Amino acid sequence: RVNKQRLMGFLNTLGTFGALEGGGVCRLALSAADKQARDWVVSQMQALGLTIRIDQIGNVIGIYKGQEDVPPVMMGSHIDTVATGGLYDGCFGVMAGLEVISTLKDSGITPKRPVAVAFFTDEEGARFAPDMFGSLVFQGGLSLEEALAIKDVDGFTVGEELDKIGYKGNAPVGCFEVDTFLEAHIEQGPVLDKEGIKIGVVESVQGISWTEFTIEGVSNHAGTTPMSMRHDAGLVAAKINVFAREVAHKIGGSQVATVGYISCKPNLINVVPNHVVMTVDLRNTDNDVLKQAETLLFDYAENTAKEEGVKISRRKLARFDPVYFHKEIVDLVEQEAEAAGLNSKRMPSGAGHDAQILKEMCPTAMIFVPCKDGLSHNVKEFTEPDDLEAGANILLSVILKRANR
Amino acid sequence: RVNKQRLMGFLNTLGTFGALEGGGVCRLALSAADKQARDWVVSQMQALGLTIRIDQIGNVIGIYKGQEDVPPVMMGSHIDTVATGGLYDGCFGVMAGLEVISTLKDSGITPKRPVAVAFFTDEEGARFAPDMFGSLVFQGGLSLEEALAIKDVDGFTVGEELDKIGYKGNAPVGCFEVDTFLEAHIEQGPVLDKEGIKIGVVESVQGISWTEFTIEGVSNHAGTTPMSMRHDAGLVAAKINVFAREVAHKIGGSQVATVGYISCKPNLINVVPNHVVMTVDLRNTDNDVLKQAETLLFDYAENTAKEEGVKISRRKLARFDPVYFHKEIVDLVEQEAEAAGLNSKRMPSGAGHDAQILKEMCPTAMIFVPCKDGLSHNVKEFTEPDDLEAGANILLSVILKRANR
Ligand SMILES: NC(=O)NCCC(=O)O
Ligand SMILES: NC(=O)NCCC(=O)O
Repeated sequence: RVNKQRLMGFLNTLGTFGALEGGGVCRLALSAADKQARDWVVSQMQALGLTIRIDQIGNVIGIYKGQEDVPPVMMGSHIDTVATGGLYDGCFGVMAGLEVISTLKDSGITPKRPVAVAFFTDEEGARFAPDMFGSLVFQGGLSLEEALAIKDVDGFTVGEELDKIGYKGNAPVGCFEVDTFLEAHIEQGPVLDKEGIKIGVVESVQGISWTEFTIEGVSNHAGTTPMSMRHDAGLVAAKINVFAREVAHKIGGSQVATVGYISCKPNLINVVPNHVVMTVDLRNTDNDVLKQAETLLFDYAENTAKEEGVKISRRKLARFDPVYFHKEIVDLVEQEAEAAGLNSKRMPSGAGHDAQILKEMCPTAMIFVPCKDGLSHNVKEFTEPDDLEAGANILLSVILKRANR
Repeated sequence: RVNKQRLMGFLNTLGTFGALEGGGVCRLALSAADKQARDWVVSQMQALGLTIRIDQIGNVIGIYKGQEDVPPVMMGSHIDTVATGGLYDGCFGVMAGLEVISTLKDSGITPKRPVAVAFFTDEEGARFAPDMFGSLVFQGGLSLEEALAIKDVDGFTVGEELDKIGYKGNAPVGCFEVDTFLEAHIEQGPVLDKEGIKIGVVESVQGISWTEFTIEGVSNHAGTTPMSMRHDAGLVAAKINVFAREVAHKIGGSQVATVGYISCKPNLINVVPNHVVMTVDLRNTDNDVLKQAETLLFDYAENTAKEEGVKISRRKLARFDPVYFHKEIVDLVEQEAEAAGLNSKRMPSGAGHDAQILKEMCPTAMIFVPCKDGLSHNVKEFTEPDDLEAGANILLSVILKRANR
């Protein structure tokens, strides 16, 4: 059994790095706050006597020795947050991992296989796109060179920023073997909370499509330019936003569509906008349907730009197919929940997670815990300590089963 | 006759203050570039031996003595620009005024009444709303205290910024008498250019309504939050943008509608926006129709906010009724154009101008010159030197008629 007090202590301490006034956290990947948080987690790994491995893209793994020198069963997630994030998204999976190893150590247990806890760079994608590029490079899905060259909106590259915070490690990427991967995470959606279920048995992650549109119109005077002579980049952006929502409604089911980012130039009350950059986030559990949504959106964007006489271009920021986790591990999570007397539900994940990348390397699954009102990527994100404890206990028992098999 | 070379010299020199790489000007009101431009214009007024009057809101008047000590006939406009402005908007009226006085001086003419040239603070409204607050305070339509307290988006007040650049003058506002006011300006719209007409005889200025909406939604995860549970501030803003355009089309005629400014928070690809500020600029030559457009827009905004479950509030940033200029001066402009062999057209102004404020104090009219492709509030704004010269000559002859009557 894990120690709830200690687990909450871990989470609350981690929440102090990049803490926002009035609650919540801003800890964008590779920022000063991220460095502070990384340093603290590494110090906790050291205190537990773990072997620490920092790789060239800044992923950090702490390894607790097993009886045999074989690939570890690994837990983990991320500690970066969005700009207005909560205390639990990602952090729970890493702190639960620390807590599981603390519990093993307290109990004097040395499992057959090593047990590791990892945190991956920039899972959120809030500063650098694509999201999850840390695990992606770790797994081999993206080259180190490409990842180091990714830029944030201010033009800083991942490589520069890793150097700045001292987390461009020596361990090579793409050659670390993992036996099993388990990611505990808050659901970030409303299902478990609404239905009063304690454990989400995550079977899959829906497909993710991120597109950036750049729209070039003609700036002109808001008072003197007849409507018929305008080339309004802002209007085209607004129409794409409204259409994305319509597509989601028309398709229904798991389809979601979000315009989260917009930048407008010259951004003046009496000037027709001439330059707008915007993003569209589309997701669906079914890849064919997701492709259909993309086609609808892209066609509409082209046509609307043509009608308004503006130029439009698009850039793919991220594209992940839907992912299905390993049946055996998924079943094991469900069995351990039942054995612990916790109700559970098989479900897909709406959010992207490092586990969906690790799943290409080894048997992988995820454990969800409820999150109040489904709020996440919000400073008010909250999960009951009892629910976090329950999730960490399932993580502990699944890990033990896998490590000792 | 004015001196074209000298007029172009004035305009091109003024265009160096706040010049943008690749052309155009960024000279927001009370910025460092505005100070440089003000200092230079004042130095030109001094070189002409004008009596200079700087008032408490930073309006500057240079007065060329007449035979009698009576209120002057005055020319003028503004020298502030939008962030991506051209060389002519406002500047033409002030530089043409300097050129007219230079011509009087060269010819040794001392008219019966004094002749003045003025530039008013923040005509554009691009930094501080409402637009034209300099002339408004001069005329008495807005109190000095209220104007000094206006803030830009960074929270700097007009009072602070006037102090910073040294243009909070000693001359009191609200007590300067003007005999006649004439503003020469580029049309900023396509009519004269398209129809090959040299002089726009401006009879009126359409009504202007500026509204700022603040929309408060709930930020949440773009992947996990079902469409039905969202409170998306960005979507409501987009719908208002699209609707504003629909209203303009439905009403037709002179109606225009523009969403020029939008700011979105947290502005992240995978977070539903929770805080959006946007502006809507509505204009019509008919005040009743303009009111109708406002009602349609405000009702739609309220209803759409309700549907999406977000809070919305609105703030009036500027509201000017349509204005009709003084028949006698308007006729005089038309007669002088005819006498000079220039074709002309009676027309309304789509843009707001200081003249519409001065018109409350004294007989007032405006002279428009063509502007290429109707482009304005754009770095590519352009008027042929010959057309500028022609406009300045009409200004000269109207001013002489009024000064010597
Ligand atoms: N778990 C999580 O919030 N991941 C960020 C990437 C995404 O938008 O799904
Ligand atoms: N002339 C001009 O551009 N004035 C600025 C105010 C407006 O938007 O009409």
